[in-house]
Amino acid sequence: MKSKHRELIKNAAGRSVPAKVNGVPVIPYKGVGKYRPEGRKHGPRIASAVDFPIDGDKRVENLKEALVKAGLKDGMTISTHHHFRNGDYLANMIFDIAKNMGIKGLRWFPSASFPCHEHLIQYLEDGTIHHIEGSMNGPLGKFVSEGRMKGTAVLRSHGGRYQAVQDGEVGIDIAVIGAPTADPFGNANGLYGDSACGLLGFALADSQYADKVIVVTDNMVEFPCIPWQIQGNNVDITVEVEKLGDPDEIISGTTRITRSPDRLLLAELTARFCDAAGIIKDGFSFQSGAGGTSLAVGEYFRQIMRKRGVKARFARGGSNKYLVSMLEEGLVEYILDGQTFDLDGVKSMADNPRHVWTSPFTSYNYHGKGNFAGMVDVVILGATEVDVDFNANVVTHSDGYLLHGLGGWQNCLFSKTVILPVPLFRDRIPVVRDRVTTLCGPGELIDVVVTERGIAINPKREDLISAVKGSGLPLKTIDELKDEAERICGTPEIPAFDDEIVAVINWVDGTVIDAVRKVSK
Amino acid sequence: MKSKHRELIKNAAGRSVPAKVNGVPVIPYKGVGKYRPEGRKHGPRIASAVDFPIDGDKRVENLKEALVKAGLKDGMTISTHHHFRNGDYLANMIFDIAKNMGIKGLRWFPSASFPCHEHLIQYLEDGTIHHIEGSMNGPLGKFVSEGRMKGTAVLRSHGGRYQAVQDGEVGIDIAVIGAPTADPFGNANGLYGDSACGLLGFALADSQYADKVIVVTDNMVEFPCIPWQIQGNNVDITVEVEKLGDPDEIISGTTRITRSPDRLLLAELTARFCDAAGIIKDGFSFQSGAGGTSLAVGEYFRQIMRKRGVKARFARGGSNKYLVSMLEEGLVEYILDGQTFDLDGVKSMADNPRHVWTSPFTSYNYHGKGNFAGMVDVVILGATEVDVDFNANVVTHSDGYLLHGLGGWQNCLFSKTVILPVPLFRDRIPVVRDRVTTLCGPGELIDVVVTERGIAINPKREDLISAVKGSGLPLKTIDELKDEAERICGTPEIPAFDDEIVAVINWVDGTVIDAVRKVSK
Repeated sequence: MKSKHRELIKNAAGRSVPAKVNGVPVIPYKGVGKYRPEGRKHGPRIASAVDFPIDGDKRVENLKEALVKAGLKDGMTISTHHHFRNGDYLANMIFDIAKNMGIKGLRWFPSASFPCHEHLIQYLEDGTIHHIEGSMNGPLGKFVSEGRMKGTAVLRSHGGRYQAVQDGEVGIDIAVIGAPTADPFGNANGLYGDSACGLLGFALADSQYADKVIVVTDNMVEFPCIPWQIQGNNVDITVEVEKLGDPDEIISGTTRITRSPDRLLLAELTARFCDAAGIIKDGFSFQSGAGGTSLAVGEYFRQIMRKRGVKARFARGGSNKYLVSMLEEGLVEYILDGQTFDLDGVKSMADNPRHVWTSPFTSYNYHGKGNFAGMVDVVILGATEVDVDFNANVVTHSDGYLLHGLGGWQNCLFSKTVILPVPLFRDRIPVVRDRVTTLCGPGELIDVVVTERGIAINPKREDLISAVKGSGLPLKTIDELKDEAERICGTPEIPAFDDEIVAVINWVDGTVIDAVRKVSK
Repeated sequence: MKSKHRELIKNAAGRSVPAKVNGVPVIPYKGVGKYRPEGRKHGPRIASAVDFPIDGDKRVENLKEALVKAGLKDGMTISTHHHFRNGDYLANMIFDIAKNMGIKGLRWFPSASFPCHEHLIQYLEDGTIHHIEGSMNGPLGKFVSEGRMKGTAVLRSHGGRYQAVQDGEVGIDIAVIGAPTADPFGNANGLYGDSACGLLGFALADSQYADKVIVVTDNMVEFPCIPWQIQGNNVDITVEVEKLGDPDEIISGTTRITRSPDRLLLAELTARFCDAAGIIKDGFSFQSGAGGTSLAVGEYFRQIMRKRGVKARFARGGSNKYLVSMLEEGLVEYILDGQTFDLDGVKSMADNPRHVWTSPFTSYNYHGKGNFAGMVDVVILGATEVDVDFNANVVTHSDGYLLHGLGGWQNCLFSKTVILPVPLFRDRIPVVRDRVTTLCGPGELIDVVVTERGIAINPKREDLISAVKGSGLPLKTIDELKDEAERICGTPEIPAFDDEIVAVINWVDGTVIDAVRKVSK
C-alpha cells in the first residue's frame, strides 16, 4: 500500500505531497495566486435533440433502469451532491444497485459525504467503490484515516470541485442529481417537495459537464418546473423514486444559537472587533456560517446594525432563520445563498426575490473571471487548528483523523477580512499551535484569530491593527495565544502517522496543498 | 466575385449550396433529424481569478478602452445581441471605434440586425467589416442581396446561433453585451433602466463561449445586480456609456392587434381550426408571435378558453400586454419568454415569478439534450412564401430580396402542430406557390396553412384531417390554394438571380439548407 505514492514533492508551503494521486500526475501548490492554468475548459460531447424524446419526457421506470441506460460500468466516476446532508438516501441506493449489478471499481465523486453514508463502507471494502473524492464528514473520513480505502481521497473546496470538473480534471461519467422537484424533461429545483433542501448548486457543474446526467426526484411535476436551478437541457434521463431522503435530516426544523458562555464570548468579541475595525458600515457585506458561534456573531451584528442604523448590501448564506429575519427586517438587502440550513431558509428562498440562490460557479470558482468571494467585506469561519503563521486546518483533528470536509472554507479566504473565532483549546488540546496538522488555508489569507483569551491580528494587516488601536479589545500576538494555550494544556503531542498518504487536500486552483497520512494505531 | 463559391453541392432538399462558406467547409442539409454531430462543445480558455480585480470591479473608462483591453484587432469576430431591436446604438458605436482605430476585416456576428444598423454599410464598403453573420432585417439585407458585401452572409435561427457558438463553429473573439442594468462585476439583466428590454437571452451563448466578454450598460448598479441573466463570472470587462439605445425603438409602448379585416379573418380561422382540432384543452401550450395577426390569434384563443373554462399550462413568448393579461387572468399558468415586445411584457417579467425568462439554450438549441420547442402544442408562425410541399420561406421576398431574419422560426417547427396563417397573396403576388424562393423550413414539419380563402392541412397529418372533418372549416388542398392564387394573380414571375451566392441559410443543426443568390438588376 505504501508504494501508492512513491514520489513526493515539497510544495511551496513546505508540505510533502505526492507527485501522482490515483495514478494521475498532480500539480503541487505554488503559493496564493501563483499557479496559472493553461488550456481549455472541458467540452462535453455535443448532444442532439434527435436522440431525445421530442415531447421532452425523459422518464424511465426506476433508478436501476436509469443507471443501465446511462451505461453504468466498471471503473466509472459517479457524482452526487450533498444538499440532502445527513438525510440523503440516494447515494446509498445508487451503490446498492451497482453492487447488485456486480459493478466494480467505481469512483464516487460526491460534493460531500455524511455519516448516513457509512453504509457504503461495505462497498469500499468489496471493491464496488474504489475510492471517494470529496469531503468526508465522520465515519468515511475515519475509514480513510485508518488507511482502509484502496485509492487516495481527494478533498476539494466547493469552488475547487467546480474548478476540477470545469477544467476536466475530474471527468464525471454519470451525475445522479437528487431533486426535490423536477419535471419529466429534467428541469429541477430544491425549493419544493418533501425533500426540499433549498437549492441544487452543488450539482451545477455535474449537470453542465458530466457525460450522462440523471435527475431523480420524489416530486415529479408537469413541465415546466419553475424555477429551474438545474436545466433539463443538460439532463439525459429522469426518474421518480419514493423518497430521496429523510426530511428531518435534510434540513433542520430549527437552527439554534449557541448557549455556551465561552462560544458566546467568542461571538461577541468577533462582532466587537468588526465594529471597532469599522467593517460594520452602510452597504457592507458579510458571511457567517450556520454553526452556533457563527449564528451568535450574526445576532451581535444585528444589534450593532440596529443601533447604528446600518444596512448591509448583502449577506452570503448558508441561510437560516436568523439571517432570513435580518432580510425581512431590512437590515440586509440581499441574501446570496449557497445552501439553506433550515426550513425558514428554504421558504424565504422560494418566496423572497431578494433571497437569491447562487452556486459554486458564481461564488467560489477560482478558474472563472473572478467570483463573489472577494467582494465580501468580512467572513467568519471555523477551524480545527491555527498555527503561529496564521495557517489553518479544517479537515483533520489534532489526533490526525480526517473527519471534516473543506466546504467553501478555502474559497471564503479571499474575502476582504477573514476572521476565525476559535477556542484557545478543545478538550485540553491547544487549537493555536506551532504548526497545523494539515494545511488547508495559507496564513497570508487569514487576518484575525479570535479566542476567548485574546485576539491576534495578522501582522500583514497593519490597517486592522491601527483601526482597532485603543478599542479596549484584548489584543495579543498569535505567539502569545499559543504560549497561553500551552501554559494551560501543555505542549501538544504530535500524532503518530504512518508514511502512507490516504488523502490529499487541493487548493482552490487545483494544486495540492497538503497530504493526510494514515494514523498509526 | 463569382469564384467565392466555386463548388456547389445539392443537399437533401435538392437545393444547391456552396461546399465552403467564407472559406470554411460546411455540411449540406441532410434532412430533418438526419445529421448527427460529432465531437465536443467548444471549451473556452480556462480563466483564473488571479487575472481579475479581487474586489470584482472590472470597470474601464469607456468603450474604446474596453475594446482595446479585449485585444481588438484585424479579422476578429465581434458579437452583439438584438434585444434593443431598432433602437440599438451599441453596434454602431463599436464599429465607429473600430473604424477610428483603423481595424479591418472584422466579422460582425449579431443575433440580428435592424434598419438602425444601416450606418454600418459604410464599414462594409471600406473594409472595416468584412461580412455579417446574422439575420438582417431591411437595408443590410438589401445590401447583401445586391451582392455588395465582401463575404457571404450566414443566417441562423436563434437556436442555430446558440448551436454554432456552443459547437465551436463560430468562435467569438469579443462579445459586446449591451445591458440595461449591470454591476461592476458584469452581472446583468434587461429588466430595469432606460434601455430595459426584458431579457438578454440572445447574448447567453456569447457570454458563455466568447474569448472576451464586455458588458456595456447605461445603468450601473452596485453589486449584486439581481437577477443576473448574464453572469459576471463570464465577463472580462464592464463599462458605462451614456445611452445604449432609443427606448421608444427598443420596445414599443404598446403592441396592437391588427384591425385589417383580412388578417382578422386569418386569425379567426386559425383559432377556429385549433378549437376544432381539439388543441385548445386544459393544460395545453401555445406560441404565437407579436405581429398583428398573431396577437389576434391569441385574443381568439382567449375567448375560446374563457368559454370552455380552459387553462393553458404555458405560453411561449415573445410576450406583450395581451399575453401578460392572459397570465394575470389565470388563463395561462406560465409565460416562458424569449423576448418582450412591449413595456407590459418587461414589467410583468420583472414582477411576476410566473413570467419566466428563457434563452435560445433552453428553448431552441437543437444540439442540447432536447429543448422546449417540441413540448409546445401549437405554434402560429408567419411566412413570406409557402409551396405545394408545405415548404416555407421567411427570409426572402418573392422578388428575391433578403429582407428578414430567421428568428426562432425554424426552431418552432418542432412544436407538435405548426400553423402558418398567411394571406393567399400580397400585392398581387401569390404567397402559396410551386416552389419557395428560399427554403427555410422543410414541409414535413409544417402542418397547416391557413389563408383567407381556405385551410390546407399537410396530408401527413391524418390525425388533424380527421379531427376537423365536419367542422365546417373551409378545407382545401395546398394545390387548390396555389391554383386559386394563380387564378387571381396570374402565374408568379421567378425573380432573375445572378449565380453569385450572397448568403446561406443554416438549418437548426448547423447544416446548410439553402443559399440566397444575388438579385439581378
